[in-house]
Amino acid sequence: MPFRLSRYFPILEWGREYRRETLVNDLIAAVIVTIMLIPQSLAYAMLAGLPPQIGLYASILPLIAYAIFGTSRTLAVGPVAILSLMTAAAAGKIAVPGSDAYVQAALILAFMSGAILFALGLLRMGFLANFLSHPVVSGFITASGIIIAASQLKHILGVEAGGHNLFEIVLALARSLPETSLPTLIIGGASLVFLFGSRKFLKPLLLKAGLSEKAATIATRTGPVFAVIVSILAVALLRLDEDGVRILGDVPRNLPDIGLPTFDRDTWMQLAGSAALISLIGFVESVSVAQTLAAKRRQRVSPNQELIGLGAASMAAGVSSGYPVTGGLARSAVNFDAGAETPAAGAFTAIGIALATLYLTPYLFYLPQAVLAATIIVAVLSLVDLKTIWRVWSYSKADFAAMAATILITLLSGVELGVTTGVALSLFLHLYNTSRPHFALVGQVPGTHHFRNVNRHAVVISDKALIIRIDESLYFANARFLEDTVYCVVGNRPDLKHLVLMCPAVNHIDASGLESLEAINHRLKDAGVTLHLTEVKGPVMDRLKRSHFLEELTGKVYLDTYDAMVDLDLDCVRSAFSKDVKTTTPDAIPCPSLALAGLERV
Amino acid sequence: MPFRLSRYFPILEWGREYRRETLVNDLIAAVIVTIMLIPQSLAYAMLAGLPPQIGLYASILPLIAYAIFGTSRTLAVGPVAILSLMTAAAAGKIAVPGSDAYVQAALILAFMSGAILFALGLLRMGFLANFLSHPVVSGFITASGIIIAASQLKHILGVEAGGHNLFEIVLALARSLPETSLPTLIIGGASLVFLFGSRKFLKPLLLKAGLSEKAATIATRTGPVFAVIVSILAVALLRLDEDGVRILGDVPRNLPDIGLPTFDRDTWMQLAGSAALISLIGFVESVSVAQTLAAKRRQRVSPNQELIGLGAASMAAGVSSGYPVTGGLARSAVNFDAGAETPAAGAFTAIGIALATLYLTPYLFYLPQAVLAATIIVAVLSLVDLKTIWRVWSYSKADFAAMAATILITLLSGVELGVTTGVALSLFLHLYNTSRPHFALVGQVPGTHHFRNVNRHAVVISDKALIIRIDESLYFANARFLEDTVYCVVGNRPDLKHLVLMCPAVNHIDASGLESLEAINHRLKDAGVTLHLTEVKGPVMDRLKRSHFLEELTGKVYLDTYDAMVDLDLDCVRSAFSKDVKTTTPDAIPCPSLALAGLERV
Repeated sequence: MPFRLSRYFPILEWGREYRRETLVNDLIAAVIVTIMLIPQSLAYAMLAGLPPQIGLYASILPLIAYAIFGTSRTLAVGPVAILSLMTAAAAGKIAVPGSDAYVQAALILAFMSGAILFALGLLRMGFLANFLSHPVVSGFITASGIIIAASQLKHILGVEAGGHNLFEIVLALARSLPETSLPTLIIGGASLVFLFGSRKFLKPLLLKAGLSEKAATIATRTGPVFAVIVSILAVALLRLDEDGVRILGDVPRNLPDIGLPTFDRDTWMQLAGSAALISLIGFVESVSVAQTLAAKRRQRVSPNQELIGLGAASMAAGVSSGYPVTGGLARSAVNFDAGAETPAAGAFTAIGIALATLYLTPYLFYLPQAVLAATIIVAVLSLVDLKTIWRVWSYSKADFAAMAATILITLLSGVELGVTTGVALSLFLHLYNTSRPHFALVGQVPGTHHFRNVNRHAVVISDKALIIRIDESLYFANARFLEDTVYCVVGNRPDLKHLVLMCPAVNHIDASGLESLEAINHRLKDAGVTLHLTEVKGPVMDRLKRSHFLEELTGKVYLDTYDAMVDLDLDCVRSAFSKDVKTTTPDAIPCPSLALAGLERV
Repeated sequence: MPFRLSRYFPILEWGREYRRETLVNDLIAAVIVTIMLIPQSLAYAMLAGLPPQIGLYASILPLIAYAIFGTSRTLAVGPVAILSLMTAAAAGKIAVPGSDAYVQAALILAFMSGAILFALGLLRMGFLANFLSHPVVSGFITASGIIIAASQLKHILGVEAGGHNLFEIVLALARSLPETSLPTLIIGGASLVFLFGSRKFLKPLLLKAGLSEKAATIATRTGPVFAVIVSILAVALLRLDEDGVRILGDVPRNLPDIGLPTFDRDTWMQLAGSAALISLIGFVESVSVAQTLAAKRRQRVSPNQELIGLGAASMAAGVSSGYPVTGGLARSAVNFDAGAETPAAGAFTAIGIALATLYLTPYLFYLPQAVLAATIIVAVLSLVDLKTIWRVWSYSKADFAAMAATILITLLSGVELGVTTGVALSLFLHLYNTSRPHFALVGQVPGTHHFRNVNRHAVVISDKALIIRIDESLYFANARFLEDTVYCVVGNRPDLKHLVLMCPAVNHIDASGLESLEAINHRLKDAGVTLHLTEVKGPVMDRLKRSHFLEELTGKVYLDTYDAMVDLDLDCVRSAFSKDVKTTTPDAIPCPSLALAGLERV
């Protein structure tokens, strides 16, 4: 397609038609999202083991960057739970949480993952994200949700407890249970109850009270704000901080200073792998949210431009002392419901957060960490999706295997190993399945021109000819499997004259597949059997014409299998139209590979 | 299938029907193969950097092991060029050629690679070898052939020259050219000329002389023996060894002592990767030879049992101070032509080699290394297959890329990195291709029930409905690509009412594909477009029935696309049968992914 500047700067598109009422709607949405984003930013920063202001900083410049480069009209970017966890895991490998090196690592991760996304976008390599299969991603998110929730319990109990995997975390919690701080537990427990309660019951109540669906949703989503205000008052008035309730404390009141993160080759190399994972996971999470929202208004998001938009956002976080960001589900939904029409809403939100950083933070001094932890727990538990696990199990055992591996390894040994194992396993299982494709020995349905699987239908076959339908593209991983199958069939039928390969479902044939066809043709010739192909697709035929296969082929290529039967003058065709047809039975297939026909794959 | 002991001991099959004439034929073949195998064993041991007797030992017990477990009636196992090169590369990483540690490494490699094959066979995991695509294997063999030939030139020149890749080897040769030993060069050059000559001209001559085709072939193949005898006499009589002609020298006259190779965890771990590569390459090389020969007599080889047979052979080499072995092409062809009928011929060959080791080696004392080098060069240059490179290039650029990478990296940086890169690249390219499948926007061929690609045919389409044909199975790598395509199409057609997905070539749909279909269905619903499927395959339909998709589907599933058109009552169907049909043009497709339709993949 022709180069258009607006392709890389979508702002030029929606900027042109920006109107007064658009402005009003965007402003309203921005105010609501800002209110929701302030506690989230602080909470996720805490989850990532970073000082609170880092969370706020990650919600300023990145939003403006996305407003310029992003293609979704309503996606709200910023810190999210999963990336906060991954940041903690990655930064924790090279520095102690709280240390300057740790904060630097977070900056580098943001900048690098942003740069990776940006580069992938320019190279239009968004497809790489596709290698994260859905079961792997959803398993990963579920497992992460569980780990995050568990890791936050220590704040609810007001105790010290570490641990890198679920096992360690639970153990540490159990050990430190005796030190539980009662006032903290009361505040944390209360906010948990309130937040879960408001999710479950507030919305119906508000609806009864006559609020519109949207208004009710928004009010419910901003529930955390009430918890925040109430708890701050409680702690401030009762000076609970002196009774061991950990509070947010001082948050620097200045805006982030802009500058590239310190470059140190070793550190960057150590973090490169983690940055790549963060970028892919962030992209996958965000793009599906963006597409869901866009579809509702028949808008479109361009995945490759989304890479650029999200890349710009994370790079912006990297140069403005933030940490990796991406589009968040809850927050985007609120933005959408609140009536945001353009990415400008995001820019306004950024301004809101900036103002909050400058003037609001003093009032957050007494905010108990337990409340932030509660908001995180409530948020991530909605990520835990056990229904999908069950659905995948019942739909496909192979997908379930990849999913289960991802979940278990993520829970027991960490996010990075978990997701990489899942991806590797799903790739392997896919290749394994296509390496043992579905072949069917087919026969003619009596009195028709149709040819069907002898295992599934009563059909007539000829002793002189066998017809095998190949239900897979032929490529290196299954080429030899086809050869084995053919030799097996032929080896068992001394009276065989013709072998017909039905190729309606062969979408491509690579060089190894061609090699196998040539070998089959050659060896069948030695064995006195003629090879024919039927129903070969156009693109596949075009390719075969570029090789010598068609010249060497002992038989012919037929458009239609019935024509082949007629041309080869086989009894079955005639007999098929007579009354007394002898149909075959599955026992007629001796080869393991053909016995596979109709069976479910691993 | 039921368990049969003879499945794991094919000897029980052919042993039963063993007759007198079979014995005679096997003995004749054994004698011929033995004569051919003696110089080969010595030469390949030299190539592997091992003492000559190791080559002979590798041609005794392994042959007997294969005779018991192997399924090919005519495969002749023993040392081969490629595995000798790989052994040298692997052992050279942990020890100095000639040292005891080096020999031990070779033993360990043989035992480990054998154990790996044996285990794969028991687990019936022969399919793993399929991940070595044909272009990668043939590129690897070509490159190895070139390296081997180059590495042997030093023996022809009678100079010292090392080097681990082609570049180093050529450089070292150039440097040491001045030290060339003239008598060595004369002997080496003469044998090269004789061996090449006998390959090219001897056979036609013998045929003219009235020999049978088979006899001529065999006589030609045993040509090296004449070179050996003549050169031994020359050196012995003229005492050329005193003029710097390197000779074989003393070869221990005892049989190998049996025993497990010394176990040392670190060494085994270091060699594990190389052993795995050796086992796979050896298996791939051997099984294709076995299948080619078996097919000629309508016999069969069972790939999984072959793993066990070759595994047993290499393990036998490991416990009888040999080194990795597999089925050799030339040697098996001779065995076949010489009339071998059962693996017993292999066992007789083993006896022949044992006798040679005991009584013949003294007469080989004066055998010049240059002659052995010449036999290697002549043998491996027949492995260099430039024609295939050209054929792959013209057939598929993706396959060519994998092949070229394998060749270049093998030549310039070594066999192991070469083959692994090739495999990784071919896997990636395959996934990449299937991740951007061929979608076609189809319309109705006027006056027919057929629906064809709008890019290739003049067809009628409706404004109310779009039909997309999916030419690929739906799995995680292309699921999102389908979504993008659909949203793109819909996003550009506000007046759209129906979207029809034609699935005749969709062989399976994994959980991610299902997820995408559900997302498409859901989002199109929001956009007021109904989703329909047509021509869904039986196995795919069975699977979909296990999910909730069919209940949630806004439209229907039709067996036939035309029925769908009629049922949806679309103008195109009616107009298609009227005279004035307005056919569409490719410009009607705005989506990059659909523009791909009909174009060749990368």
